[in-house]
Amino acid sequence: MAGNSFGNIFKLTSFGESHGTAIGGVIDGCPSNIEIDLTKVQLQLDRRKPGQSSITTDRKEDDKVEFISGIFEGKTLGTPIAFIIKNKDQKSDDYNKLKDVFRPSHADFTYQNKFGIRDHRGGGRSSARETAVRVVAGEIAQQILSKIGISIHAYVSKINTIELTKSYDEIDVNLIDSTIVRCPDDSTAKKMIALIEQTKLEGDSLGGKITCFAKGVPVGLGEPVFDRINADLAKAMLSINAVKGFELGSGFDSISMKGSEHNDEILSGGKTKTNFSGGIQGGISNGEVIYFNVAFKPVATIKKSQNTINQDNEQVKIEVDGRHDPCVVPRAVPIVEAMTALVILDHYLRNQSSRIG
Amino acid sequence: MAGNSFGNIFKLTSFGESHGTAIGGVIDGCPSNIEIDLTKVQLQLDRRKPGQSSITTDRKEDDKVEFISGIFEGKTLGTPIAFIIKNKDQKSDDYNKLKDVFRPSHADFTYQNKFGIRDHRGGGRSSARETAVRVVAGEIAQQILSKIGISIHAYVSKINTIELTKSYDEIDVNLIDSTIVRCPDDSTAKKMIALIEQTKLEGDSLGGKITCFAKGVPVGLGEPVFDRINADLAKAMLSINAVKGFELGSGFDSISMKGSEHNDEILSGGKTKTNFSGGIQGGISNGEVIYFNVAFKPVATIKKSQNTINQDNEQVKIEVDGRHDPCVVPRAVPIVEAMTALVILDHYLRNQSSRIG
Amino acid sequence: MAGNSFGNIFKLTSFGESHGTAIGGVIDGCPSNIEIDLTKVQLQLDRRKPGQSSITTDRKEDDKVEFISGIFEGKTLGTPIAFIIKNKDQKSDDYNKLKDVFRPSHADFTYQNKFGIRDHRGGGRSSARETAVRVVAGEIAQQILSKIGISIHAYVSKINTIELTKSYDEIDVNLIDSTIVRCPDDSTAKKMIALIEQTKLEGDSLGGKITCFAKGVPVGLGEPVFDRINADLAKAMLSINAVKGFELGSGFDSISMKGSEHNDEILSGGKTKTNFSGGIQGGISNGEVIYFNVAFKPVATIKKSQNTINQDNEQVKIEVDGRHDPCVVPRAVPIVEAMTALVILDHYLRNQSSRIG
Amino acid sequence: MAGNSFGNIFKLTSFGESHGTAIGGVIDGCPSNIEIDLTKVQLQLDRRKPGQSSITTDRKEDDKVEFISGIFEGKTLGTPIAFIIKNKDQKSDDYNKLKDVFRPSHADFTYQNKFGIRDHRGGGRSSARETAVRVVAGEIAQQILSKIGISIHAYVSKINTIELTKSYDEIDVNLIDSTIVRCPDDSTAKKMIALIEQTKLEGDSLGGKITCFAKGVPVGLGEPVFDRINADLAKAMLSINAVKGFELGSGFDSISMKGSEHNDEILSGGKTKTNFSGGIQGGISNGEVIYFNVAFKPVATIKKSQNTINQDNEQVKIEVDGRHDPCVVPRAVPIVEAMTALVILDHYLRNQSSRIG
Repeated sequence: MAGNSFGNIFKLTSFGESHGTAIGGVIDGCPSNIEIDLTKVQLQLDRRKPGQSSITTDRKEDDKVEFISGIFEGKTLGTPIAFIIKNKDQKSDDYNKLKDVFRPSHADFTYQNKFGIRDHRGGGRSSARETAVRVVAGEIAQQILSKIGISIHAYVSKINTIELTKSYDEIDVNLIDSTIVRCPDDSTAKKMIALIEQTKLEGDSLGGKITCFAKGVPVGLGEPVFDRINADLAKAMLSINAVKGFELGSGFDSISMKGSEHNDEILSGGKTKTNFSGGIQGGISNGEVIYFNVAFKPVATIKKSQNTINQDNEQVKIEVDGRHDPCVVPRAVPIVEAMTALVILDHYLRNQSSRIG
Repeated sequence: MAGNSFGNIFKLTSFGESHGTAIGGVIDGCPSNIEIDLTKVQLQLDRRKPGQSSITTDRKEDDKVEFISGIFEGKTLGTPIAFIIKNKDQKSDDYNKLKDVFRPSHADFTYQNKFGIRDHRGGGRSSARETAVRVVAGEIAQQILSKIGISIHAYVSKINTIELTKSYDEIDVNLIDSTIVRCPDDSTAKKMIALIEQTKLEGDSLGGKITCFAKGVPVGLGEPVFDRINADLAKAMLSINAVKGFELGSGFDSISMKGSEHNDEILSGGKTKTNFSGGIQGGISNGEVIYFNVAFKPVATIKKSQNTINQDNEQVKIEVDGRHDPCVVPRAVPIVEAMTALVILDHYLRNQSSRIG
Repeated sequence: MAGNSFGNIFKLTSFGESHGTAIGGVIDGCPSNIEIDLTKVQLQLDRRKPGQSSITTDRKEDDKVEFISGIFEGKTLGTPIAFIIKNKDQKSDDYNKLKDVFRPSHADFTYQNKFGIRDHRGGGRSSARETAVRVVAGEIAQQILSKIGISIHAYVSKINTIELTKSYDEIDVNLIDSTIVRCPDDSTAKKMIALIEQTKLEGDSLGGKITCFAKGVPVGLGEPVFDRINADLAKAMLSINAVKGFELGSGFDSISMKGSEHNDEILSGGKTKTNFSGGIQGGISNGEVIYFNVAFKPVATIKKSQNTINQDNEQVKIEVDGRHDPCVVPRAVPIVEAMTALVILDHYLRNQSSRIG
Repeated sequence: MAGNSFGNIFKLTSFGESHGTAIGGVIDGCPSNIEIDLTKVQLQLDRRKPGQSSITTDRKEDDKVEFISGIFEGKTLGTPIAFIIKNKDQKSDDYNKLKDVFRPSHADFTYQNKFGIRDHRGGGRSSARETAVRVVAGEIAQQILSKIGISIHAYVSKINTIELTKSYDEIDVNLIDSTIVRCPDDSTAKKMIALIEQTKLEGDSLGGKITCFAKGVPVGLGEPVFDRINADLAKAMLSINAVKGFELGSGFDSISMKGSEHNDEILSGGKTKTNFSGGIQGGISNGEVIYFNVAFKPVATIKKSQNTINQDNEQVKIEVDGRHDPCVVPRAVPIVEAMTALVILDHYLRNQSSRIG
């Protein structure tokens, strides 16, 4: 039982290999008769695409999304929305020498062993290129959410050891895209960019942290006991390539707090004095801002020589000279937003489904 | 669309309110003709039950599991395994004064607003009592996994600021239950216990961290791109009451590492030199030990006076005098193991489903 | 991947073996804060229970439903509704001699071969006793549907060759339960009863047909292209023990009609002149009455001697002397209604889930 | 919650409107490393395509399937198999005058009311053109099933009142495609063709019956109690456009039989003397041939003038002059086979998922 679908009511099915004809997706369960701004969908895709700045990979893809079904005269039909993004820049030759070698900390070894076959070109299905599909679906979800007053923003809050000291409620969302590293603080951003550029020269890679928050989420989204909205957000984030951790609200820091410090006292109207809960209590949104952090490991593709084995189980050296990102975190910002939108819209619709009359 | 089922092939449906007749569960999809040791199921339940030691709540529940179906002459029938655990010690009166008040950082407010009704007694459905159901199902899963060579162990690695300095591969699993705090290092455990006892006297509560690891997981479990085994583990953990964070392998620490440090070089036979990946690459198990950390916030129920509102939206003071744990983390150890077992067995069976002949 | 759950939003999970401790079910996804009349649930169960009249089996079961969770002070909590029906009259000894023999046209052979084990007592899980669970869930669904103006009625329209000549819109639903055979026409009912009584004496069994119709279903229920409401009704009916066929509206008779005769012309307001479509067009309800027929084979348990094999693959004679129905069709009426209610309510809630705002 | 996916393990998601860019599908859960003969996939599609003979519509579509992902060097990757079939012959103008009119017994009225919008061109999503997608997926399933010895054949057994008198085990499957009506008996076929041609001239349409059978299905497929393989076959068939009924084995005829006649006595080795059960007992395959009938109504599109309403609820006359089939039943033969293959392969894989070791 494969796992290429996400969501229950608003459901995305993703397909495609990195160097095949195209990648794409099908959204089933999109509410009908809603206007979708397709230009904005493309803009989100542009925020994720390779080659967009000096700190990303040189690989260039147009990443133009083409809609095949489900949208008629600019509006959703309530039928499946299918779309594809063609794979144009297929330098498959670059990958020929990787055909029989398992790149360390990549999925080459596990795919080969699980499936008995793999498309080795650029990682095939395991490539992060697949996440472009999520950005398309996520932007459609975000447009629908915006109609009910929900907004989602993510930004880079840490690269390696350089950390933004402002919290989610102190930043200006308009500044997020003002730097190529997508950190909404100019001086921190500059340090991050400098470190990434230096690391690129070294042929090495860097990890980072993305903080995301959603405003305007009504009280009541989330389905206990298993499908808590935080549980589904955690799954959504860990389903993104290179993600190693998730924490909601106070997260790992809550460990060192006492209950009397950590509890969010409830004020008149249901607002809370503090928001250590991160907007979710008992798995259900409480009307406060939902916020969380996502940890990204340093990307596995580096130019430095490494030890590994080939398909004949022989020890070999590997030096990857394809075009890759020294740090994927800035490009992952729209992906985190997209997955968040998918989770929240799905839970919004799930909540609708429990009403009579 | 509610969310009281977990898993796809080996699927647990959980039911029951804390102070209703009983809690219980139904496992659908359990392989047939497998002997189950029901005594061991009860033993796991005893590891979770309240009142087991001086650092847990005084609330006493026998927590005896009764099997209703699906097991015949000691073996699984392949039909649904239903079981209940009766709620014996129902001091519902304790909760009468909480009937109209929303306890801070509990689910009272969100349940009331989502459902328009709630069973206020002991938190009703939102009570962590529900996790006993998971322990029953998880132990059945663990017994099946043990037949294919997979073992799962969790332990307390941090309480508040007191942290175990040994890593998962340095501890002795036989020592986990040798202390009531379930930390497999005697001197660290003593400090943790002292802190919990002191906090109990203060009427306050503490958070902590549980580390869990699974050995013997074969290469190939996990279904990209969304149902990565790490994504499903993250969801499983965040579905546990009071959990605020999850990190796999190097987790949040990976942020400050470089790719050249973090990559796990592959040795002959497919073993890796290091295991920063935490046993999972591209969402699929690679045969190494799967390990991860889970962050628990300090439990919300404390004796100290707090500000909140009642159902009439009036500001009131709340002082809870029911019997509660100053620190739930030691009792959560079997829950973390159980949820891990559910995820791994489900993925084992999912992997079986993709084979012809 | 087992199949003991039905429905997507309003989801019933059924459990239990015929001669185990109990059978029961869990409903997940029931809308919250709705009053349920538990007395009426029991009354529906009484319509299905064995031993209710001279033409049913002599086996007596109290079939008392006990609710375990999900209902608080008479109202649904929005949490799982679990219930059990204890198996009281367990004459398991009757079944000892069937332990190693496969009854013809029963599930003994297929269960044994699929699972490698079976509870042979009374058919275990394969017994039609399981359908009592559906009646409980179905009555809860019917009560919810009645609040939105939907009513469901089924009746016996044929026993062997004795057929009711009135169509669904000519009968009086108040007469359905006025005869023990549940045929709402006195003279036809008498003939049916006489035939059943005679067949009982012969130790043989009879098949029959049930017609069911739902009034008040709003336009718009059903989800193309696969989850058409007629497709889900067909599945629901074929999931009932002994059912061999399903036809919607004009059904098999439509084969001999021409398009110009069969098409339902549309009148002002959307009503149709005829209703050969059976209230569903393109898989979606059109506001007309939904009606369909269900074919039941003669029940497999007969007293007459038959040839079969035992577990050692030896040819043996079998004569079943347990207490069984000569014709299950009258007792199946509430089951057909229940499954219909589950399908319609599930689709009503699915339709709700596609709305924004 | 929409319904454009079918299957649980081998899962097809279908998309596309009749006159949009393309229709297509995504198969998730296809076993990996299996060779697929893409030429045979196209041949199946040709069996379904319009304009193939004198008794089908004149509408011509090349119906060329293009694979986008999931197949690499001729073999399945275990990743989603996406494919599209472009809509070439889009005479959308033909449909302009139908833009505001609801065709009787079509889905125009129900789609418009459910979704508040519809693609009126050729029925949009409700067009039977969508079934081409099923034929592609079904042929892939059939190729996999053939590797485990399972074969599936369907044929036309009745058109209007002209019925084939041979049963499924008396026909020669090689003759099915020897006549354009797909009835494997030359003299019956001639009568059927003559009737269809005459009806075409009259501008009217005809219904019919398709019989389908599967050989080589191993004992044990099907998941009680709800996901019986017969229940899933019924759903599959009723999900096909124009289908009004389904009957397994003895079907509706079983009503007039007695248990002693109908029971299938079991012979040594588990074979049965008769096969009234249609190869399924208790919802699980018993190793005998699975066979069933499917009733198709006369197609709703006719040239004769009919009464209906438009979107302003005004009574209007409608005369459809597009190119349509007088009888869709012969073209539905590969669709019935395809849906059967999807059900059986899905259940084969479900059965695999319940095994340990």
